[in-house]
Amino acid sequence: VTNSLLGNGLFGALFCDPDTALAFSAPVMLDHMIAVEAAWIRALIETGSVETDDGDVALHAVTTFDVWSFQAASDKDGLPVPSLVAHLRQGLPPGPASVIHAGLTSQDVIDTALVLTLLDVLDTLDGRLRGLSDVLERLERDHGSSPLMARTRMQAALPATVSLRVCTWRWLVRSLQDRLPEVRFRIAQVQVGGAIGLRDLTGGVGSPAAERLAHALGLRLGPVWHTERTSMVELGHWFTLVTGALGKIGQDVALMAQQGVDEITLVGGGGSSAMPHKANPILAETLVAIARHVAGQQGTLAQAMIHEQERSGSAWALEWLTLPAMAEATGAALHHAGTLCAAIQRIGAPG
Amino acid sequence: VTNSLLGNGLFGALFCDPDTALAFSAPVMLDHMIAVEAAWIRALIETGSVETDDGDVALHAVTTFDVWSFQAASDKDGLPVPSLVAHLRQGLPPGPASVIHAGLTSQDVIDTALVLTLLDVLDTLDGRLRGLSDVLERLERDHGSSPLMARTRMQAALPATVSLRVCTWRWLVRSLQDRLPEVRFRIAQVQVGGAIGLRDLTGGVGSPAAERLAHALGLRLGPVWHTERTSMVELGHWFTLVTGALGKIGQDVALMAQQGVDEITLVGGGGSSAMPHKANPILAETLVAIARHVAGQQGTLAQAMIHEQERSGSAWALEWLTLPAMAEATGAALHHAGTLCAAIQRIGAPG
Amino acid sequence: VTNSLLGNGLFGALFCDPDTALAFSAPVMLDHMIAVEAAWIRALIETGSVETDDGDVALHAVTTFDVWSFQAASDKDGLPVPSLVAHLRQGLPPGPASVIHAGLTSQDVIDTALVLTLLDVLDTLDGRLRGLSDVLERLERDHGSSPLMARTRMQAALPATVSLRVCTWRWLVRSLQDRLPEVRFRIAQVQVGGAIGLRDLTGGVGSPAAERLAHALGLRLGPVWHTERTSMVELGHWFTLVTGALGKIGQDVALMAQQGVDEITLVGGGGSSAMPHKANPILAETLVAIARHVAGQQGTLAQAMIHEQERSGSAWALEWLTLPAMAEATGAALHHAGTLCAAIQRIGAPG
Amino acid sequence: VTNSLLGNGLFGALFCDPDTALAFSAPVMLDHMIAVEAAWIRALIETGSVETDDGDVALHAVTTFDVWSFQAASDKDGLPVPSLVAHLRQGLPPGPASVIHAGLTSQDVIDTALVLTLLDVLDTLDGRLRGLSDVLERLERDHGSSPLMARTRMQAALPATVSLRVCTWRWLVRSLQDRLPEVRFRIAQVQVGGAIGLRDLTGGVGSPAAERLAHALGLRLGPVWHTERTSMVELGHWFTLVTGALGKIGQDVALMAQQGVDEITLVGGGGSSAMPHKANPILAETLVAIARHVAGQQGTLAQAMIHEQERSGSAWALEWLTLPAMAEATGAALHHAGTLCAAIQRIGAPG
Repeated sequence: VTNSLLGNGLFGALFCDPDTALAFSAPVMLDHMIAVEAAWIRALIETGSVETDDGDVALHAVTTFDVWSFQAASDKDGLPVPSLVAHLRQGLPPGPASVIHAGLTSQDVIDTALVLTLLDVLDTLDGRLRGLSDVLERLERDHGSSPLMARTRMQAALPATVSLRVCTWRWLVRSLQDRLPEVRFRIAQVQVGGAIGLRDLTGGVGSPAAERLAHALGLRLGPVWHTERTSMVELGHWFTLVTGALGKIGQDVALMAQQGVDEITLVGGGGSSAMPHKANPILAETLVAIARHVAGQQGTLAQAMIHEQERSGSAWALEWLTLPAMAEATGAALHHAGTLCAAIQRIGAPG
Repeated sequence: VTNSLLGNGLFGALFCDPDTALAFSAPVMLDHMIAVEAAWIRALIETGSVETDDGDVALHAVTTFDVWSFQAASDKDGLPVPSLVAHLRQGLPPGPASVIHAGLTSQDVIDTALVLTLLDVLDTLDGRLRGLSDVLERLERDHGSSPLMARTRMQAALPATVSLRVCTWRWLVRSLQDRLPEVRFRIAQVQVGGAIGLRDLTGGVGSPAAERLAHALGLRLGPVWHTERTSMVELGHWFTLVTGALGKIGQDVALMAQQGVDEITLVGGGGSSAMPHKANPILAETLVAIARHVAGQQGTLAQAMIHEQERSGSAWALEWLTLPAMAEATGAALHHAGTLCAAIQRIGAPG
Repeated sequence: VTNSLLGNGLFGALFCDPDTALAFSAPVMLDHMIAVEAAWIRALIETGSVETDDGDVALHAVTTFDVWSFQAASDKDGLPVPSLVAHLRQGLPPGPASVIHAGLTSQDVIDTALVLTLLDVLDTLDGRLRGLSDVLERLERDHGSSPLMARTRMQAALPATVSLRVCTWRWLVRSLQDRLPEVRFRIAQVQVGGAIGLRDLTGGVGSPAAERLAHALGLRLGPVWHTERTSMVELGHWFTLVTGALGKIGQDVALMAQQGVDEITLVGGGGSSAMPHKANPILAETLVAIARHVAGQQGTLAQAMIHEQERSGSAWALEWLTLPAMAEATGAALHHAGTLCAAIQRIGAPG
Repeated sequence: VTNSLLGNGLFGALFCDPDTALAFSAPVMLDHMIAVEAAWIRALIETGSVETDDGDVALHAVTTFDVWSFQAASDKDGLPVPSLVAHLRQGLPPGPASVIHAGLTSQDVIDTALVLTLLDVLDTLDGRLRGLSDVLERLERDHGSSPLMARTRMQAALPATVSLRVCTWRWLVRSLQDRLPEVRFRIAQVQVGGAIGLRDLTGGVGSPAAERLAHALGLRLGPVWHTERTSMVELGHWFTLVTGALGKIGQDVALMAQQGVDEITLVGGGGSSAMPHKANPILAETLVAIARHVAGQQGTLAQAMIHEQERSGSAWALEWLTLPAMAEATGAALHHAGTLCAAIQRIGAPG
């Protein structure tokens, strides 16, 4: 559900990510849903499963639909598709009206639209990972040879250099980047199953039409995944790896920033209302908190696998309750990590 | 973090609760923060720890502050208090300026303001619990003697009546209501610790001032709890019990609504975009999903107990990341449970 | 499920607690099950619901049963009760045989026996809490006035004394002790519901018999709780509070033990196979790990609330999968916390 | 920690897996540790970093060590390696003694030994996946064309055949099998970092020696992963996918087995102590419970990513607290799923 404390502006964007939030906003989601419906009508026309005239009228109605005019009527249906389809069909003669959404089900539209949004989000995150990677490379180049006490089990171990630690950070980031193409591949698939997942259209054109839909949306076509949710859980897993890695960086920074340890100097830092002398490593702490939060959510998201019968309202809702928040948290964490690492003025053993 | 998919309006209020959301909104939170700052100035005046003249000027500045004029400057400090205090002091002579927030720290203001908000939320939830309780009482009165097959381990067990099942629902709701006063008592305490939790003011008036603050806000005064977060975790626990109980009701309803079982008839029900004949038990499924989601969040919130030293930014943030969302989820679940149970037209073995 | 790595002896008792383990062992659990069956036969005799002669024979068979002779036949029934009852009835004439377990169901026996075991566990934990409390009191008496830098958000805040921190530890422990009587009260109830939770016996003696059973076992009698699992979730919640509080102590100690901070000296400490100069704060780290682990399990246990119909095999099993491990983890954590705090030789700012 | 209720035998092997348990047992783990130490000595000899004579004596001592003679002394060091190394060196002259474990640290030995155990476990699970796959193939062949009502959102949707559902099961299992090689590849790496992760040996032979170690153990050599724990979290993720998929199968079966629905007939089934007419779908319920349990644990395991500095005792312990239990749960679930699906006598709409 929504977290109205963290979204109320009083915490700035510490626990938000406007870019990710935008990708999940109503206009963008509706745009994606409309794109799915429109591409599907084209696919139906091309495969000859609807009359071209009806198809053209339907297509015109869908592509000229003003998403801003749409108010999700109610929470009655559990999702906006039935209501959206009714709006799209409004005022059309029976022929074109019946073309719209023909052979699709709500899940096809929501899942596919969500995939398009998630791919947008991954683009954003990918850019931030590259930015962070650059910052870390610079950090190692500038400070890598400075001495640093290695610490194991919270105890001084042996003298080393900053490279030892920053290399691990870089390696973690690299390892997450390396995993991204596969995660992207797994989720970049259309969902076309129809009412119960059979992908059946009169004339046996279900699969050809689905192929056209996939092609038009730049997605791949695999088996129906209405109840096979591994790709969504896999994406959540990648979010936990990313935020977990950033949590390690945050924890390391917070520990180095301690007085007595004094291994890092950060530009900026949070002010205290009671102690003006303090400069709190807010972003470092936030990275740790977000990491634990996202990890915990994965424990819930993974239960979406228990997706009974041919569509589970409960299991499906678990994805919506967790995945968008995990995406946004990951976006915020990547943003903060970049800012934090760029704010490192000095790193290594004190004078 | 925020969940921008569920807050975008396309799902109606299925995963939101406007009343709870309002309690966490910026104006309400700022009102509570201002109330804390004002009551504290009064306490300082009354305990003689500030000049009355300075105090009066400070109090005037605080009580006439327009919360709508305040834009949380940035996420730099990790919370809005330093910025808010700077605003409150703006344009004041040094004397009155120094009175504002004297002896308090950001955590005192945020924790206490959050307590006031949480108490508002509990009032709302309490009302909904009573409403649900009434609906269930009526349900049992009207249908309690109808036959119903008892089922254990998903298998028909022995013939019984509707009372057997609805009594359990009632007993669960009753049990949650019974726990509420204690939960309320535990959280209804001011947080006054000052910079590091010593609650020390020149002249030894820290405790008397804290008592006055507590009295003015209708809260109790206990030991400083800046790092003793049991009350917050306890509240989260109560949310898991409430949503868990409602999840059981939802699961029972969804199972009874199956064709072949046919033990319940609901008025309304969600429409399908592909199968017009369907009436999906959306609210029942949502109750189950929310229950699992809130339970999972408790597993994260509970880690806020690991609150190192005299204030942990990470552990504290874990509370903000989970508790408001859990509160709102509980509010939504109670709303849905009331609607769902009121929509039961028939319950019991099929004709 | 079992964790065969941590139980294999190679980690000593770092992640085990022999006392708690014993309470969940087969002989002890069987003893409790037998105690339930025997007390129930007595209750049946006293309420006149069985022939005294048959009852006496049944009682003799049950009370002389050698638990060591019992091998839980298989995992076929999902729990040992059907098999145990068959063993108890073996060789008896039909009359006495039918008295054994008459009117009970497996859940009655397992739940009540588990309550008896959990109460034993709470006794053990209570003793350890008292021991820890004593150690902490001594610690404060001996070192409370030593200087210590207060730290907030991982940053030096203001000079203070050891009392500030140790008082919080003591207050946490005290707060957990204060909650124990209520937790104990909540769980200390017999489960007597019979096949589907109606607690019905011929002659309407279900409730009187249940009262006698409760009295004989030193438990209270409340409503049937076969599907109302708040007390079990509440117990898990208390485990998370305890381990969370100890996790805070562990985290504080680990941070104080850092070189550069040097605020604590521990007697003992773990050796390193590569760096003989190290003394690792093993127990402190373990407390943190256990705290996170137990918190996470609570997120799973709480889902046992979604206990569908009149008995959910899945939801019930979730309790077994989590609660005993949480209990044992809490036992180990309390043991380690006592050892760790007793090993503090010096605490406070370095020389 | 250990779960002494589920390991006490009274629940049979419902929540255990003897094969997996064996892989984590002390003798097997010690065998793996010894194998690492021995292969390392060979690598040191071959790279010329130790005197061959000393190396041969050391090697003889290690390879003839009787693991059964080893009792992990205590929980003092947090892991058995320091104590094991001391035993291995016992009675040897200084030269050979210093060869043993030279340049390694405890984490190198534990991590690498654990990898060897996990690979054994994956072999077992792989075999069970294949077995399950065969059972499902047969199931579809024998019953695929039987009619079955498709159900979405717990409501009858449209008539279909058994194939629709069983194909999803098969596709899920296939999808998990497809992921296995990559999971295996990721974890099948030696950990060789030495004291602080530099993999440095006099003469610069750290990497060549590590290569030889990897080759001897049949593992790959990648960067040091002492604090880069993605592969462990990835393995846990795969466990959640597997158990989640089996949880879906279990949930489907339990729903089909309901009276009124009657879409499945199972051979066997659990007996009830109170209702002899019942045949409870124990294994189906257990699959659901295990799925939720493992998912929740993943939420904890993922926090092991927050692995501060050059070795985190807390984060590392989180892996031990979760991963072996998740492995064993997965083993049990796969075993049960095979048994359950093989016990399906009839599936599809009732006569």
